[in-house]
Amino acid sequence: MKSQITRKDFLTTAVRSAAAVSVGAVGVSLLTPSGGQAATTPATWPWPYKRLDPEDVRKRAHKFYYEGGCAYGAFNGVVAALVDAVGEPFNRVPPQMMYYGGGGAAGWGTLCGAVNGSAAAISLVVDRSNASAIVGELLGWYTTTPFPSDISNDYARAHVFFVNKSDKILKQNASGSPLCHTSVSLWCSESGYKASSAERAERCARLTGDVAAKAVQMLNDFSTGVFKATFVAPRSVPGCQGCHDSAIGNVVASVKMDCQSCHQENFQHLY
Amino acid sequence: MKSQITRKDFLTTAVRSAAAVSVGAVGVSLLTPSGGQAATTPATWPWPYKRLDPEDVRKRAHKFYYEGGCAYGAFNGVVAALVDAVGEPFNRVPPQMMYYGGGGAAGWGTLCGAVNGSAAAISLVVDRSNASAIVGELLGWYTTTPFPSDISNDYARAHVFFVNKSDKILKQNASGSPLCHTSVSLWCSESGYKASSAERAERCARLTGDVAAKAVQMLNDFSTGVFKATFVAPRSVPGCQGCHDSAIGNVVASVKMDCQSCHQENFQHLY
Repeated sequence: MKSQITRKDFLTTAVRSAAAVSVGAVGVSLLTPSGGQAATTPATWPWPYKRLDPEDVRKRAHKFYYEGGCAYGAFNGVVAALVDAVGEPFNRVPPQMMYYGGGGAAGWGTLCGAVNGSAAAISLVVDRSNASAIVGELLGWYTTTPFPSDISNDYARAHVFFVNKSDKILKQNASGSPLCHTSVSLWCSESGYKASSAERAERCARLTGDVAAKAVQMLNDFSTGVFKATFVAPRSVPGCQGCHDSAIGNVVASVKMDCQSCHQENFQHLY
Repeated sequence: MKSQITRKDFLTTAVRSAAAVSVGAVGVSLLTPSGGQAATTPATWPWPYKRLDPEDVRKRAHKFYYEGGCAYGAFNGVVAALVDAVGEPFNRVPPQMMYYGGGGAAGWGTLCGAVNGSAAAISLVVDRSNASAIVGELLGWYTTTPFPSDISNDYARAHVFFVNKSDKILKQNASGSPLCHTSVSLWCSESGYKASSAERAERCARLTGDVAAKAVQMLNDFSTGVFKATFVAPRSVPGCQGCHDSAIGNVVASVKMDCQSCHQENFQHLY
């Protein structure tokens, strides 16, 4: 997978996008709307990224968590900053479209919504191959990072967030998994707080800020040609897949998650 | 959770959205673009839905799978149909933004991309509370539905799809999980095909069509006031949560997935 792009490549894309937006703008002003339909020429994708301040995005995403959950929070944390920094076409996407990602998709506990929302924002501004590399790296980073970060705990203690619901230093843990269910369950187990508690909500708000800020750090690196994917899947993945393929009928497919994060008990026959 | 809406409610929203689009269109034609930024007034969310033909969407999503993977396929299967049926504002969202969802998010095997993409499309046209109910129902339906559907297998056999890469009747299985990893692994185990095989790709293409078509069926029901959420979480969820809460330190939080779909081995102490 191509995981790096030169600064020249990225700026060429950005310039092409900006040019396309200008063409679109002219098209818009010439077309006459009819039948209740505005005539907006689609902006060329990927949309033009502009370097953002990760700390500003951390605070935005933390605030937006309380307005619309983790996926909306992370997505809008990035996109609203791009609306302010770039303007068109970032105001064309309604951030509410990411509400569904909250709680791992309608509360089902699958993909962490902060990752889902950040990934959607990344995918507005980066081509398919490079977005896959960046999103994959974000997922890997997520599984090994203790949340909430020291920065977010410090922001809360010092009342630096836009929304200050708690100044407690919250327990940090790395879940080893990108799944909401695993992430929240382990944090509740380790912290002693219930999933329904205000502290768990604040933990997820801080995490939402942390993930959106990390996404922006990676986008900034990508925009200057220094992003590099470094995550390596845990040894359980190639270890299990080494035997469990279609030849023996119990297939381990489509996974980069640590197998032990769900299948702890299976490891007695190997480790 | 509010899981039903009256036809009057939905049509009121649709009319309000359409009016907002008209206002936006006027705004667009009056504003002068400057600095490479087009001046497009954001359309009011949720965007106006128009009843779609599930079979048309099934075929579109199947085709788009081969252009951009499962999440893009499902999302664009619905959104491209809405661009044709409604036009503005559905052409404002670049469907490429859902590329990342392929293979359960950058190949990580988390939330099935066909569900993720369909959920994003649903969330363009339905308010937060009702979208959560519809997406939750789609997730529940997914876990209990054998894929590929008889319809998709028949379309393939009769060369009805827009893209005809295989006319084989493919093995059907219900994975009990919304996770790509589980869904693909079990299908490969039961069918004997490798994850890297053309047959597995065609299985996921048909599944993508099936999920997008189901999403549209539910949106059509919602638009006529007859949608009703019926999915009930498997007994393992309340069963496990009955004991595993913060009181005993091994918390089961944020989940509607069948616990046994990952933690098979834990059940010896209960069932």
